[in-house]
Amino acid sequence: MAKIGLVTGSFDPVTKGHLDIIARASRLFDTLYVGILYNRNKSGLFTIAERKQMLEEAVEPYSNVKVVTAQDSLAVDVARELKAGYLVRGIRDAKDLEYEASMDFFNHHLANDIESVYLLTSPEWHYVSSSRVRELMHFHSDISAFVPDSVVKKVEEKYDNLKRI
Amino acid sequence: MAKIGLVTGSFDPVTKGHLDIIARASRLFDTLYVGILYNRNKSGLFTIAERKQMLEEAVEPYSNVKVVTAQDSLAVDVARELKAGYLVRGIRDAKDLEYEASMDFFNHHLANDIESVYLLTSPEWHYVSSSRVRELMHFHSDISAFVPDSVVKKVEEKYDNLKRI
Amino acid sequence: MAKIGLVTGSFDPVTKGHLDIIARASRLFDTLYVGILYNRNKSGLFTIAERKQMLEEAVEPYSNVKVVTAQDSLAVDVARELKAGYLVRGIRDAKDLEYEASMDFFNHHLANDIESVYLLTSPEWHYVSSSRVRELMHFHSDISAFVPDSVVKKVEEKYDNLKRI
Amino acid sequence: MAKIGLVTGSFDPVTKGHLDIIARASRLFDTLYVGILYNRNKSGLFTIAERKQMLEEAVEPYSNVKVVTAQDSLAVDVARELKAGYLVRGIRDAKDLEYEASMDFFNHHLANDIESVYLLTSPEWHYVSSSRVRELMHFHSDISAFVPDSVVKKVEEKYDNLKRI
Amino acid sequence: MAKIGLVTGSFDPVTKGHLDIIARASRLFDTLYVGILYNRNKSGLFTIAERKQMLEEAVEPYSNVKVVTAQDSLAVDVARELKAGYLVRGIRDAKDLEYEASMDFFNHHLANDIESVYLLTSPEWHYVSSSRVRELMHFHSDISAFVPDSVVKKVEEKYDNLKRI
Amino acid sequence: MAKIGLVTGSFDPVTKGHLDIIARASRLFDTLYVGILYNRNKSGLFTIAERKQMLEEAVEPYSNVKVVTAQDSLAVDVARELKAGYLVRGIRDAKDLEYEASMDFFNHHLANDIESVYLLTSPEWHYVSSSRVRELMHFHSDISAFVPDSVVKKVEEKYDNLKRI
Repeated sequence: MAKIGLVTGSFDPVTKGHLDIIARASRLFDTLYVGILYNRNKSGLFTIAERKQMLEEAVEPYSNVKVVTAQDSLAVDVARELKAGYLVRGIRDAKDLEYEASMDFFNHHLANDIESVYLLTSPEWHYVSSSRVRELMHFHSDISAFVPDSVVKKVEEKYDNLKRI
Repeated sequence: MAKIGLVTGSFDPVTKGHLDIIARASRLFDTLYVGILYNRNKSGLFTIAERKQMLEEAVEPYSNVKVVTAQDSLAVDVARELKAGYLVRGIRDAKDLEYEASMDFFNHHLANDIESVYLLTSPEWHYVSSSRVRELMHFHSDISAFVPDSVVKKVEEKYDNLKRI
Repeated sequence: MAKIGLVTGSFDPVTKGHLDIIARASRLFDTLYVGILYNRNKSGLFTIAERKQMLEEAVEPYSNVKVVTAQDSLAVDVARELKAGYLVRGIRDAKDLEYEASMDFFNHHLANDIESVYLLTSPEWHYVSSSRVRELMHFHSDISAFVPDSVVKKVEEKYDNLKRI
Repeated sequence: MAKIGLVTGSFDPVTKGHLDIIARASRLFDTLYVGILYNRNKSGLFTIAERKQMLEEAVEPYSNVKVVTAQDSLAVDVARELKAGYLVRGIRDAKDLEYEASMDFFNHHLANDIESVYLLTSPEWHYVSSSRVRELMHFHSDISAFVPDSVVKKVEEKYDNLKRI
Repeated sequence: MAKIGLVTGSFDPVTKGHLDIIARASRLFDTLYVGILYNRNKSGLFTIAERKQMLEEAVEPYSNVKVVTAQDSLAVDVARELKAGYLVRGIRDAKDLEYEASMDFFNHHLANDIESVYLLTSPEWHYVSSSRVRELMHFHSDISAFVPDSVVKKVEEKYDNLKRI
Repeated sequence: MAKIGLVTGSFDPVTKGHLDIIARASRLFDTLYVGILYNRNKSGLFTIAERKQMLEEAVEPYSNVKVVTAQDSLAVDVARELKAGYLVRGIRDAKDLEYEASMDFFNHHLANDIESVYLLTSPEWHYVSSSRVRELMHFHSDISAFVPDSVVKKVEEKYDNLKRI
């Protein structure tokens, strides 16, 4: 039976930290879905279409990775729909662990047949997050060390490399 | 290509916390090895033969799980010998995470092709460990809630349920 | 002299984790008050009257427990008014501890004669909180494992078990 | 029914941090026992008789506090013998919490009728421990800020304020 | 070459915890700047002019300390403008450390020639923060133990010691 | 007045993590001492003479850094003898912070005129420690990524690159 995994996040925008987890997880599964989860009422910096495009371009080297989107959904419900038996999550630090342990508990309650597996974020991406990237963008700082080319390109396009966002 | 995992530990003795991780990990891999790692100079409470017997009896329900032993070896070297591409570890708390993050770093340094995947220990086994079980045994307390039957049986056999150990 | 304790919270709604602390604390004191503290400007999901009713029904088995409410008040001021010499708090994890240690410091500064005593939340309720219960409600998930019957009943009544809240 | 508490430790020697917890806990119980727990095979710096004498002198102001000793015993077994329904523990930091949470879990397993209550160590004694006091003694440093007079006196008597220990 | 340091914060208002760090850091540098950083869109309780006046009065005893303000700026950019080679930060607890480690990482990325040095907040100010001071003010509690005289004076002036803020 | 700092450790052996702290601290002080502290009764893997030689070779690029040794001494006493007003320490994680906070407290008690300043270990050396290096040596693994050349050379010399140590 095919082993199918699902990595979820808001990917606003995708970072090299996300890609590190996705690349390593892609080898563990036959198919790995990357799910952009979002809430109708909570807008981000990039539109869902933009996030999806940046992600798809960035995961192109990994042939068994597919990008999907889901609105107002629980990760376990998305997994079920995709027939994914595994949620994959990256852990950076004790704060992440605290959050993941709580989610793991409730996910087992909601869907006991879906397992969560974790990878530890590589030390070089320990401090990289979408919110920090957005903050660097706010101060017009160079973000190319922390995000894939698809994001750099989109940012240049969108902000013309000039205006403060 | 077959996905092969390896769970390592000293299993002195195996606990229901270990079994929880083994059972859940066994579904993720085609073959899951459980490796009893030990050092020549550091003796434990149970002999390696006893630990192996207790483990083998406890993992019998999981047909793709095999128990092996290794002396004075690094986990990544054992993995390589067994052609296992994945180390599997359970994480209970922030202290475990700190330890695992350090091991993960050095394991990637020693064997970049071997990946470590983590499961979070179920809350009911959060505080259960081999050392705590040995301590309960020391005070002649009942351990049957925390270890599989194979361990209860061996303890009764070995200590006659009478002598303080 | 009678020993009087006070457990405070917003109880929006009361969970089985709260009840675990209340039940265990009720044996330590002659009278145990449960104080619903709220701010005029910060509304919750349930009204104060609803929260009070759900709590009162849930603590009925504990004859020395009384539910009170207080608006825009410090816990130590409520304690003083009730002649309670002790604040009782549950601690789940390191994050709770950090918060409680800070409150303990300021409470001793504000009212040195009032002592705070702590119980550790039972592992089975470790991840249960009012905010997580509200989130489960938001996704129409079953909450009956985490809250007393009085809350289940109220939720059914209020939301008709149909509408997304 | 009388409420009886038990504070345990090795008190080698008693510190002002211990006394802070004992003084505050003494007001919560009708009788508060302070139990010096020790293992036959693990000797400390002070003899059990010395520890007991220093403790008894230090707790003299608290009329409902009694000092007892117990060899190779679990705290819950000592509590049961003394008809104490409560174990009292001080918590200083996240590391203490981790340890106490584990003990709490096993103590409830061993004796579900005995409750553990916690006080947070006052910030001024946050870093004070018996082991640190012994280390200061080792370097001939002044310890009078961290231990009661009974300990200062005993140390002067025992070490003549001259010899390195 | 002169060693120049920079302590940044919002100082809304300055606390005795801040002053502890400033006083100790002032001895480490030839000149120590204290920079009030603020965002145009995020107003605080005190105006920037008030914060500056309170700070200047409080640091008067330290002759090499100068107060500056900066709007919508990164700390490293302010440092560069002031020719300060060092950012100085106080750390209270693990949560602070997590935050500072992340900032340290990004600051080295943005300005590798600027070093961050840390002092550990003295235990007596461990729980004191501007936000807690504002909360105490909200409940009309005495704040004089936690802030310098210049703040007490300003608060009396501004709020007449009467109105709830 | 000259600013003199002191970094202490056992340096058994010095790592690139130590050197990162030493190099960055050397710019903060006029003179930076590196003190190898050791206890008569606790032998290490390398002799004190070997440790000193490896350190001296490694810090040669930093002209204001001097290596000293001290037996059975407190860091503050060594600092005083060297007229160093500052202890310099590296912090990697929350566990380090806990330890340093305790030492900081007692050091201020023992020598209030000596200040401790901290640098955060660069992420690339986060998991590197002398004990981990010794462990890698034990398993005959390559350590050159984690220690300076002077250590690699000494290890080859001492162990002939052949024998297990």
